[in-house]
Formats: sequence, structure tokens, C-alpha cells
Amino acid sequence: MNFFSPTAEARPQFSDILQAAERIKGKAVRTPLLESPILNEQLGARVLFKPENLQRTGSFKYRGATNTIQALSDEQRRNGVTAFSSGNHAQGVAAAAKEAGIPATIVMPKDAPSIKIRNTRAYGADIILYDRYTEDREAIGQRVSEETGATLIKPYDASLTITGQGTIGLEIAEQAAEMSLQPDIILAPCGGGGLMSGIALASEELLPKTELYAVEPAGFDDTVRSLASGTRETNSAGARSFCDALLSPSPGEITFPINQKLLKGAVSVTDEEVTEAVKLAFGQMKLVVEPGGAVGLAAVLAGKIDIRQKTIIVVLSGGNVDAELFRTILAA
Amino acid sequence: MNFFSPTAEARPQFSDILQAAERIKGKAVRTPLLESPILNEQLGARVLFKPENLQRTGSFKYRGATNTIQALSDEQRRNGVTAFSSGNHAQGVAAAAKEAGIPATIVMPKDAPSIKIRNTRAYGADIILYDRYTEDREAIGQRVSEETGATLIKPYDASLTITGQGTIGLEIAEQAAEMSLQPDIILAPCGGGGLMSGIALASEELLPKTELYAVEPAGFDDTVRSLASGTRETNSAGARSFCDALLSPSPGEITFPINQKLLKGAVSVTDEEVTEAVKLAFGQMKLVVEPGGAVGLAAVLAGKIDIRQKTIIVVLSGGNVDAELFRTILAA
Repeated sequence: MNFFSPTAEARPQFSDILQAAERIKGKAVRTPLLESPILNEQLGARVLFKPENLQRTGSFKYRGATNTIQALSDEQRRNGVTAFSSGNHAQGVAAAAKEAGIPATIVMPKDAPSIKIRNTRAYGADIILYDRYTEDREAIGQRVSEETGATLIKPYDASLTITGQGTIGLEIAEQAAEMSLQPDIILAPCGGGGLMSGIALASEELLPKTELYAVEPAGFDDTVRSLASGTRETNSAGARSFCDALLSPSPGEITFPINQKLLKGAVSVTDEEVTEAVKLAFGQMKLVVEPGGAVGLAAVLAGKIDIRQKTIIVVLSGGNVDAELFRTILAA
Repeated sequence: MNFFSPTAEARPQFSDILQAAERIKGKAVRTPLLESPILNEQLGARVLFKPENLQRTGSFKYRGATNTIQALSDEQRRNGVTAFSSGNHAQGVAAAAKEAGIPATIVMPKDAPSIKIRNTRAYGADIILYDRYTEDREAIGQRVSEETGATLIKPYDASLTITGQGTIGLEIAEQAAEMSLQPDIILAPCGGGGLMSGIALASEELLPKTELYAVEPAGFDDTVRSLASGTRETNSAGARSFCDALLSPSPGEITFPINQKLLKGAVSVTDEEVTEAVKLAFGQMKLVVEPGGAVGLAAVLAGKIDIRQKTIIVVLSGGNVDAELFRTILAA
């Protein structure tokens, strides 16, 4: 096996995020914090967006992928990388591999948005398609890794992935300081928890008073339930959501203990609530946000968290949505 | 009359742009430079976008409006401001006035996108609607100014407006330096020429080797024709385009001499070419760009300017487009 296995790794540390920031510097976009005075007035709060849909490859996943690939040894690079992903991690790994000049094999679900499959291919990766509901992507990814010697880059449950995503927390803290504001709350989308736990590690160090909330799609609220029960819960196999980026089966082995320790809570939102959020991001923020990327905003709009008079950072995690679905959402 | 009349003003200078940058600091968003490796590869060039659709109020117009209002005397502030605008300048002035705590009266065409009218109203401005094809907005704006004593903030033909927009050129130069790149070409949308001439004044000082091109909608190519003839030409009254932000009748009295001196050239694009650009900004850049904001990208995609192997900055000037039109564009 040629991947960074959970057991072989130490728990990621804040110092690893600083290292990650060095590795991704000049490669990843330092996405701005954006706000709408009209929206602030409507909500009676100050809401700032961290638009990772504007990141290279259209999602935050590029950060963790670049951090991991830049940390590989020369020998590891020669054998290339592989990844399993619903699409955003796929594009992140494919783009980061291309920039490093190494081969990438990506395992993607057949029903991933076509824009995600198309772009992953455009970055020059080999693609293996599988059935999300009957096949085990992790097993396919590990088989590729064993056959080719490629390093498996896990989508969330790996230290370098987590600390790469954690650079978002670092930037939020820096940008908040530049703008002389103290965030009361940070909301981030949560699938396997890589983004959330990375932000939490940065926030623990730099914004210790800020309350963190993970946001999940209804039916995929494994983190909500795991935080309540204290153990890693699994989603029902029959659950469906159009938030294709957030359909992981359960919290990660590495990510969950971090989130359990550092989060204030987690909430879930329905596809209808996400639809309103995508529409608002279009109309007020001029941002194309995919459903899974908009769950944090959906939680704010649906009043899932009390934000009155507070300063809120909402991470918009990606924008890879097919035109057809986007048209349907705008017409809803 | 209570407006900054052309004859009363000196030609705007580069130093005025530095002053403008101080006035808008902490108010306007310093929009990032964004690029897509996939698009760069497709075009055989390095194309960086300056996304002013992410500016407060969804367009660059907020810069000039804020610069003007922040420069008003206490007495001028008491009497408020007025403006005539197809919508983006309207929102910019309304928002800047609200932030300064002064009243604003805005004269807008009846057929402006409803999102622009709605948002201008949301900023608390009084709105007077007129018929774009039969009434003279300049006359209405001047009447309001005379009746109320409000200062008329012209949409492009005024020094403080031009130098406010010129802060975009300043930021492009700063950001290019930060990224160690030398822009070969800057493309910007051109209606009355305020944005273009402001950028040109900054570029003359900071990026003297960079070639500047104005881009206009077909049928509204008054700057193209004026540069060719050497005199300010007027558009045909029967011309139509869905680039509602760029339908000014002719180049400005102040803006044209600047553009005449400093531009390398000007080109025009059809609505069909703009449609492709809006779609690409959606799919690759995750940005909501209105038709008039996308003409620069349209010129690049349609091959109107030779960009091979070059570094190009494309200003995306606004994102205030109705959902219905955006849906139509995505389906085209």
C-alpha cells in the first residue's frame, strides 16, 4: 500500500497548516472575504463569504491535493497519484498532479456532475467510473494504488489533506484581522469532515473564541448524529440529496475526533433550503455555487443558527454545478 | 447647477487615482485576479480576470460613486446626490450615498434589469423611471439637480468618477507585481468610457508597455468608430443589444481624449459572442457576469485580438443580470 494511512500518521497539528500554506503559496488562490450590505441588513448580521468556488478547479479541494502532492518524495512522484472522489477532490488532485508533472488516476462515480468528469479529464487524468450505490470506491482506489504503485490521496481522512484545507482557516483569521473584525461564528460544509476539521485546527489556534458549525445535507447528517451520540454514525444507504459533494457515508477516522473536540455543533439543511441559498448567491453575491457548497448559507437563511447581531463567516466550498441543474435551481 | 461640469474640471491625473484609492479604502472590495489553467491551455495564453462583479453592488461603478461622494463638502452632502444610470451606476451611487448617510435620487430607464431597479431601491434611493428611447436622462437628472440642489454624479464624464474607476488599473498593476507578471494587454468593457479611461490613466503611469483595448457591443461601437475617425461618433438610435450596461450614445467629452491618446485600439462583439463568454465565466470561473460585463472575455474567445502566448487582463465589469436572462443564456 502506498498511501498515507491514518494509523501511520500523527494527528494533524496547527504547525502543519503553516507548512501547507507555504506549499500552496503562489498556486492556490487566496480567495477574498466578500459581503453584501443588502444581505447584511436583511439578516441583521454581518455575513462574510469565503468563496472557494473561485479556487483553482472550482473548489477548496485543490488546497489539500496540492499540499499532499508537493510533500511527496521524488520516488512517490514517479509512481503518480490516485484518488477516489465525487468530483471536486478529483479535479483538485488532477490539476495538482498536472502542475507537478506526475500521472493521476481518478476513481469517480458514474453519476457525478458531467462538468466535474469533463474537467478532471481536461487536467489529463485517467478516469475510472464506478457505481456510487453498489461499488466500493475505496476498494477500487486501493486496488489502483496496489497495481500501479501510485500514492492514494484520500479525500478527507488524511493529515496532509486536512491541513491543506486548513489553510482556509488561516486565511480567514488573517483576513479578519486585516478587516479588524472578530468572527463570532464560522460555518462550513461537511461531508467527510476534512474541510471542517482543517478550519477547526486553524481556528483553535487563531480564533479561539469563534464558534464553529458543520453543515450537512438532510439525510447525510452523520456528523450531526455522531456529535450527539459520541460515536461515528453512518448514513442510510437509501438517502439522496443533490448536494453531490457531501454524500460521504460517515465522519472520518481522523477528522471526527478533531471535529468532536472543536466544533460548537452541526446542523443539516434540506435540498429546498439549499436551492434558496444557491439563488441568493447568484443574485446578491454574483457567485456560482454548487448545492453542496451552499449548505452553510442555507443554514443561515433558514435560521438554523442564531446569527443576529453577530459576525459570521460562511465558507462556500465549491462551484462545480452543471448548467442544466443551475437553470432548474434559478427557476425554482 | 450643482454638478462637476466637464469644463470646470481639470483633466483627471494619475495622482487623483491615488487619492481615490485612499477614499475607497476599506469600502470597496479589492477584487482578486483569477485565472483558470484549463482556459489558459485552451487559449494558448495566460488570461487573468479582474472580477468587478464581486465588487459591492455587483459592479465597478461603486468605486467612482464612493470616490465622488467621499469628496463632497458638508454642504453638498446635506443636499444629497442624484444620478442617471442604466442600473450599475444607480446601485453604486445609491449604496455609496447610503453609507455616507445622504439622500440619493436616481433616474433609471424603465427597461433596466429588474434586479438593478430592485437593488437600487433596497439601498434606499428614490427612483425616477424614464423611457430610454424617447426621453433624455441627462435633462431629467439636471432638472432633479436644479430642483433639489442635489449634486449630479455623472456616470462617466466626470473626473472623480473616472479616477474612482481608475483604482482598478492601480490594483491590476499592484497585483501583477505581486504575482510577478507583466500584462501584455488589458481589455475592458466600454460604454461612455469612464472605466476604460480610468484604467488607461493608471496604466500610463504603472504599466506603460501594456496595450489597452476597449470592447463594445456591436451596434454600440461608438469608440471603435471615433478612434478611427478622430472625432466623437454617435450610435444609431435604432441599435439594440442585451449589453444593457454599455448603451451610451457616444464617447464622453472627458473620457474620449484620454482613450484616444492612450488606447491601442477598440473592438466590438455580437450578442452571440457575449453569450458564449457569459457561459464560459459560469462554467470555468464560477462567476455570474452580466452581458455588458463579459464583452472583454467575448473578444478574447472570438479571436478579435491576437493574444497567443501573451498575458492578458480581462476586466469583468459587473454581474447584475436577471435570473431569467441568465437561464436563457445558459441554455443557448
